[in-house]
Amino acid sequence: MSRKWVYAFVEGQTSWKSLLGGKGANLAEMTNLGLPIPPGFTITTEACNAYLEGGNSFPEGLWDQVLVAMKAIEGEKGFGSTEQPLLVSVRSGAKFSMPGMMDTVLNLGLNRETAVTLGRLMGNERFAMDSLRRLIQLYAKIVMDVSSHEFDNALMDACADAGVAEETELDAQQLEAVTERYRRIVKDATGQEFPEDPYEQLRLAIAAVFRSWNGRRARDYRRMEGIADDLGTAVNIQAMVFGNMGEDSGTGVAFTRDPSTGAPGLFGEYLLNAQGEDVVAGVRTPAPISTLEESMPKVYEQFLGYAQKLEDHFLDMQDMEFTIERGTLYMLQTRNGKRTGASAVKIAVDMVAEGKISKQQAVARVDAEALDQLLHPMIDPSATPTSLAKGLPASPGAAAGEIVFDPDEAEDLAREGKAVLLVRTETAPEDFHGMVAANGILTSRGGMTSHAAVVARGMGKCCVCGAGEVRVDYQTQKVSIGGREFERGAWFTLDGSTGHVYEGQVKTLEPELAGEFQTLMEWADSFRTTTVRTNCDDPEAAVTARKFGAEGIGLCRTEHMFFQDDRIKAMREMIVADTVEERERALAKLEPLQEQDFLGIFKAMDGLPVTIRTLDPPLHEFLPHEDAEIVALAKELDIAAAALRSRITTLREANPMLGFRGCRLGNIYPEITRTQARAIIRAACTAQTQGIEVLPEIMIPLVSDVRELRVQTDLVRTAANEVMEETGVTVEYMVGTMIELPRAALLADEIAEIAEFFSFGTNDLTQTTYGLSRDDSGTFLPQYLQHRWFDNDPFQVLDQHGVGKLVQMGTQLGRGTRPDLKVGICGEHGGEPSSVRFCIRTGLDYVSCSPYRVPIARLAAAQEAIAQATQAEDGASGNDEAGPVANAMEAGP
Amino acid sequence: MSRKWVYAFVEGQTSWKSLLGGKGANLAEMTNLGLPIPPGFTITTEACNAYLEGGNSFPEGLWDQVLVAMKAIEGEKGFGSTEQPLLVSVRSGAKFSMPGMMDTVLNLGLNRETAVTLGRLMGNERFAMDSLRRLIQLYAKIVMDVSSHEFDNALMDACADAGVAEETELDAQQLEAVTERYRRIVKDATGQEFPEDPYEQLRLAIAAVFRSWNGRRARDYRRMEGIADDLGTAVNIQAMVFGNMGEDSGTGVAFTRDPSTGAPGLFGEYLLNAQGEDVVAGVRTPAPISTLEESMPKVYEQFLGYAQKLEDHFLDMQDMEFTIERGTLYMLQTRNGKRTGASAVKIAVDMVAEGKISKQQAVARVDAEALDQLLHPMIDPSATPTSLAKGLPASPGAAAGEIVFDPDEAEDLAREGKAVLLVRTETAPEDFHGMVAANGILTSRGGMTSHAAVVARGMGKCCVCGAGEVRVDYQTQKVSIGGREFERGAWFTLDGSTGHVYEGQVKTLEPELAGEFQTLMEWADSFRTTTVRTNCDDPEAAVTARKFGAEGIGLCRTEHMFFQDDRIKAMREMIVADTVEERERALAKLEPLQEQDFLGIFKAMDGLPVTIRTLDPPLHEFLPHEDAEIVALAKELDIAAAALRSRITTLREANPMLGFRGCRLGNIYPEITRTQARAIIRAACTAQTQGIEVLPEIMIPLVSDVRELRVQTDLVRTAANEVMEETGVTVEYMVGTMIELPRAALLADEIAEIAEFFSFGTNDLTQTTYGLSRDDSGTFLPQYLQHRWFDNDPFQVLDQHGVGKLVQMGTQLGRGTRPDLKVGICGEHGGEPSSVRFCIRTGLDYVSCSPYRVPIARLAAAQEAIAQATQAEDGASGNDEAGPVANAMEAGP
Repeated sequence: MSRKWVYAFVEGQTSWKSLLGGKGANLAEMTNLGLPIPPGFTITTEACNAYLEGGNSFPEGLWDQVLVAMKAIEGEKGFGSTEQPLLVSVRSGAKFSMPGMMDTVLNLGLNRETAVTLGRLMGNERFAMDSLRRLIQLYAKIVMDVSSHEFDNALMDACADAGVAEETELDAQQLEAVTERYRRIVKDATGQEFPEDPYEQLRLAIAAVFRSWNGRRARDYRRMEGIADDLGTAVNIQAMVFGNMGEDSGTGVAFTRDPSTGAPGLFGEYLLNAQGEDVVAGVRTPAPISTLEESMPKVYEQFLGYAQKLEDHFLDMQDMEFTIERGTLYMLQTRNGKRTGASAVKIAVDMVAEGKISKQQAVARVDAEALDQLLHPMIDPSATPTSLAKGLPASPGAAAGEIVFDPDEAEDLAREGKAVLLVRTETAPEDFHGMVAANGILTSRGGMTSHAAVVARGMGKCCVCGAGEVRVDYQTQKVSIGGREFERGAWFTLDGSTGHVYEGQVKTLEPELAGEFQTLMEWADSFRTTTVRTNCDDPEAAVTARKFGAEGIGLCRTEHMFFQDDRIKAMREMIVADTVEERERALAKLEPLQEQDFLGIFKAMDGLPVTIRTLDPPLHEFLPHEDAEIVALAKELDIAAAALRSRITTLREANPMLGFRGCRLGNIYPEITRTQARAIIRAACTAQTQGIEVLPEIMIPLVSDVRELRVQTDLVRTAANEVMEETGVTVEYMVGTMIELPRAALLADEIAEIAEFFSFGTNDLTQTTYGLSRDDSGTFLPQYLQHRWFDNDPFQVLDQHGVGKLVQMGTQLGRGTRPDLKVGICGEHGGEPSSVRFCIRTGLDYVSCSPYRVPIARLAAAQEAIAQATQAEDGASGNDEAGPVANAMEAGP
Repeated sequence: MSRKWVYAFVEGQTSWKSLLGGKGANLAEMTNLGLPIPPGFTITTEACNAYLEGGNSFPEGLWDQVLVAMKAIEGEKGFGSTEQPLLVSVRSGAKFSMPGMMDTVLNLGLNRETAVTLGRLMGNERFAMDSLRRLIQLYAKIVMDVSSHEFDNALMDACADAGVAEETELDAQQLEAVTERYRRIVKDATGQEFPEDPYEQLRLAIAAVFRSWNGRRARDYRRMEGIADDLGTAVNIQAMVFGNMGEDSGTGVAFTRDPSTGAPGLFGEYLLNAQGEDVVAGVRTPAPISTLEESMPKVYEQFLGYAQKLEDHFLDMQDMEFTIERGTLYMLQTRNGKRTGASAVKIAVDMVAEGKISKQQAVARVDAEALDQLLHPMIDPSATPTSLAKGLPASPGAAAGEIVFDPDEAEDLAREGKAVLLVRTETAPEDFHGMVAANGILTSRGGMTSHAAVVARGMGKCCVCGAGEVRVDYQTQKVSIGGREFERGAWFTLDGSTGHVYEGQVKTLEPELAGEFQTLMEWADSFRTTTVRTNCDDPEAAVTARKFGAEGIGLCRTEHMFFQDDRIKAMREMIVADTVEERERALAKLEPLQEQDFLGIFKAMDGLPVTIRTLDPPLHEFLPHEDAEIVALAKELDIAAAALRSRITTLREANPMLGFRGCRLGNIYPEITRTQARAIIRAACTAQTQGIEVLPEIMIPLVSDVRELRVQTDLVRTAANEVMEETGVTVEYMVGTMIELPRAALLADEIAEIAEFFSFGTNDLTQTTYGLSRDDSGTFLPQYLQHRWFDNDPFQVLDQHGVGKLVQMGTQLGRGTRPDLKVGICGEHGGEPSSVRFCIRTGLDYVSCSPYRVPIARLAAAQEAIAQATQAEDGASGNDEAGPVANAMEAGP
């Protein structure tokens, strides 16, 4: 007896994906749930492999089993019958989804005779003949390898002959003539006839699907996705049903709950006497699903029951397709429905209340990234604005305002109470005050981690970056977009979540952190085992971040404080100083200002750790570059413009990212580190005296060698001791370092001899590991992503494979030296869900991200904790399949 | 019986360095050779450790043993004797040399009485009293911890009282008065008297030397050098001898061979009736050592014998110090003599001929780096030019010429047969033709691996870089240096080996690759097991490199070809092209030119592998940046200046080093790679048809992910197949990649799936691993090196610790995937001896460097091979001390 190659849908089950493929296993599962699935069967992946290994010939017994299985699905109809013709589809279906990579043939069973019968039965001869025409073309291409080109020409010729513009205007007779032309094309190209015999059609189609497993596209796809070549594909053969058989037929799609709001109850639409493509094409307007209750009450009742059954079975909101053929309801497909962030949260929380899922499952299934939508103002979905341009969605939210090009002007207008958007080619640190004043920021250059983007995200302010079509002319104070010009003062609206730039003032909605959001976050925190901190630089942001659940500050960038009006002058004096004494005089002015900032931050973060990074950016970032500004500054500083220009030239760098910055500044100008350490410790002493619990962590940036860190640490400790002696107060503090250069990660064992904590600065670590400037990657990165040469923008999603290897090495080496080493991450990746989960798996103690991403990080951290707990349980029970949480999240039916 | 803590010099031997310290062991060795060493003994490192562990008290028996040993060295003299007073020195001496880190006290045994006696015996009371003065000050500082400040004041007061300007004018009586003031200072500061008792002086001095082992400086030094803290220091006590005891006394230094030329025969000088410092101070002119034969024939004969004995014993040219005290010759020190490159080569080859050392030893002991002096013109040593400024010795050799500031002018003048030096603030690729024309290059900005430096080294052309004092004013066509101005046309001479900029035309000597050089290189090649290739970009350089022994090309930078007059225009057309078609048209012009270049290189390298890198630098490097040039170019290209300016602005990058370059160019503009691949393969086909053996290796730069390499490799192979079909010729070729980004090294296992060879681009790998731009490091790197925060300039000497870790990982991972993977290095480090040796230890198949460094790399490679062979032998014989080669090279007596 030969092997069992064929399984009827009723014989299979969902866990047999290796044997039946994903699609076949799910069709079996639905059939076994008792749903009305059009009958069919699956040819196993083993059959495919046997076919390919056997030199492209059917293994023994396969065809006989197919014939038996066909009989079983014929029912009242007959395959090739001229009375009740059965048509079938032949679809590939591998273990892992490979969308579009392999072949499908529909309407098998059509030929000259059955097409006529079908037309008559449907009362739609045109439809039947057009189906035949499509079958011949598709079949010829897939099974017989004839290119579509000739068919397209023949169709155009037929239109020309008939004097019509489009094929949709051809009638049944004219289409029949086209099918004859098509047959000739097949004959001419292959020397063979298009087979009239349905069984020959079927046999050849199955073989073609088998062969498609080894097609070029499929092989490339598998190589890219790391799917094994020896899995083979299953083949699903299923009876076709038609929704266009009259007014007792129809087709539709529906969700078990509202995918926009999460509100319970069936949500969807349908069309009577129509095929699926009619719903999609939008030619006719579908009716709401609720009206089906009136038109076909029995069918509606059935459908309600199936929907409930499916949701109860898959324990998630379902997105279902159905067809009604002459009063009989068929379910065609179901899968977990796509939904908005708000809907995801509500459904998850509701389903816990309904007793359907656990709190863990609820937390695990909400896409953490989708929370972002909930935390910012958004464009009113009912608005239909005109998009002028599209840039990168650099910082989410929506904002409207008058456009201005100058940061000072932005500040002035904002003071007058006006809503402004700051529009620049790109922003620099000296534009900071204008960014603070503006409702939103638009730049024509720079990527997702350009200055504008990073600063805007830190402030939770809407920002669209790198909108190349937007050309700013500072001289004429105009901006041109695609040939149109807009004056200063024109109203724009930005959507930082999509990157769209809209004309005029578009209505926006404020975020509502509804009850379900709070509930879900509380559950998340109860499962979470990793701390979430925030990156923020001033007391106001710290208060916001704490509201969002931040459990400390992971990165306070002291330089951001220097851009404020009262500090930038002293900072510039410090930079242009010729002697240590002059520099110290300028620093002495900054010290009390910094101290006040730190005091404010310590107060906001009472009882929580605060990591403060010493000065990091190259000094030229603090100086102007336009000549007029240089002259003005020289006057202000009371030095010669030429001298200032020369100083600026000296500081200019070919590659500032790799230049005189980070701890290199503090090593060459130790007085800078000393001043900053004094300000931090003095603020800490004052705060502690006021009853505030302070946990300062002083962080040295851009360390490449332990000796650099030793010098800086000595400076900090000496300054701290001085301050504590002066004040008579003792505070506990730590000194640690950013790990943001490959060398630091490679030699982390040595660095941990000095560092009391590590914080992975994955922005710069990504830049150096890839040799990729985030500011310059816009030229080629979009194409890299499009071609999938890179999986993701590595500045958005941590490259776990390469950069992550350094994070792992650094953590292991560091803890090898200092087992209790505190390790965190403070790059932008600290708020990206997959990166957060990687950090937790790597054993980091905390992640830190911009305030508005703290809830996202909290949720992602909870999801990883749940996944790990589940894995541990599965490990204990010897279950090597994915756990129920993973199933609920990822496995669509 | 107590432990043996004290060893007389006659009891020790050179291998007991752990016990006796380096200095003690060598003094013992020389004593045992029968040389007249002033008598003495060594207190062991164990005694030091026992002292420190015992809470700073002498271990049992130590002092008794010291007393016994003192007796043995007194001879006719007596320690504290008022008739024949013996003076001794007390010197520290650890296992490893720690220069200047620990303490030394001279002239112990002097006090009020012995000073008078000594003055009388010498006939020089002033000298004796001055020695006592110095003893008190030094002793007070080292033993009693009294700062020098008060002593300096007292001495100045004494000068003032005596009405003289300097202490040298004080007579014996006045100095005696100073010693009394000094005694009071000691008493006031410590409450204790300066000890008159010589034995008390000795005891306390020994204890002070023990304690100096744990002094701050010594501990810091050990930490930096990785020397263990528990080694302890030995203490050497040795009788002092005096060369200023009359006309039968004297002192001098001599070499066993000429350190400048290597010529055999004693070479040195001496002074009668003088101390060592008199020779150094240069107040009196010493006599040539040969005249000693007349003045003291017996002593001379003795000295000749000792010199011979020492050279025979240490088997190397010796640098000896000696003193004659009343007709008795004492040898004070001997060590392997420093020498010029030429001398090193000649001595090594001569000593083989003399049967003293083996060829391996000869090869092993010549400092490979010193060969550099032999390979370039040099400043005539007899010249005494005026140094105007000092920059970085960027490319060795010497060159004189008229200074010009414009590359076009340099070219014009050179055509007229004039010698010119190109002087620029910095150079850019568009200055290339001017650099070719100039005899030498001087820049005021940029480091050892700036554009000017790299290109100059490639051409073997003298270059001084980053001479900050040199200010070029292009407008006035003047250069100012330290307040002086020089017009265009002034003569300068550059020394690229020292970085000096001289005024006027200084005489230079052409290199003479003498017979000994050839001989040594032949021996080196016979031991060498690793291939040495060269980095060069044109046929002429390839011919030179082959003469220097290059065994292939490791890096041919195709972009350098594009800067030549006939190509740059087509290149610029390519860059400003708006469409693929325009770009292909421009590339079509370049293709035949490139083909000709490659053909020339293949011919020059007949039978040897040639690695050609596809286009690497960012495109804006090919475009002008000055407005006048932009206008001119726009006219030439027949496009609007505004359009060109806009294109240049678009291409401008914040960090071009991390920007749109390397394979990113070839991925976005595949037509570039295609054209280059066609040119290479077409040239290879032509060459092969002409009977030339071609081994092309096409190298893809700046790969960070295997997918990038796959795309480029596919492009190359497709183009190659096309060309081979067109020409009907089949050539073998390889496609591989630079490993120059940390990510490529970390994921080398994946990259090796595609790459047929790796070449470590350690310039860029160093930049990215350290996050350090070579062009911008000049601001802080000098201070980093001065403070020893970095051991070396990592762009000159490969950072084996950090960057080297990536080289090792990359090699291992790559070979894990592809065991026969060919691996080389083509960064600048490929010509630096310690880096070459590291590469060989890491298992690289070849190193590649600029043509003029090929002999250096060959020698270094031979040295590593010899060291490995020796180690293997030692391993086999169970000897865990350093082998004889290492000893001969590193261990000074």
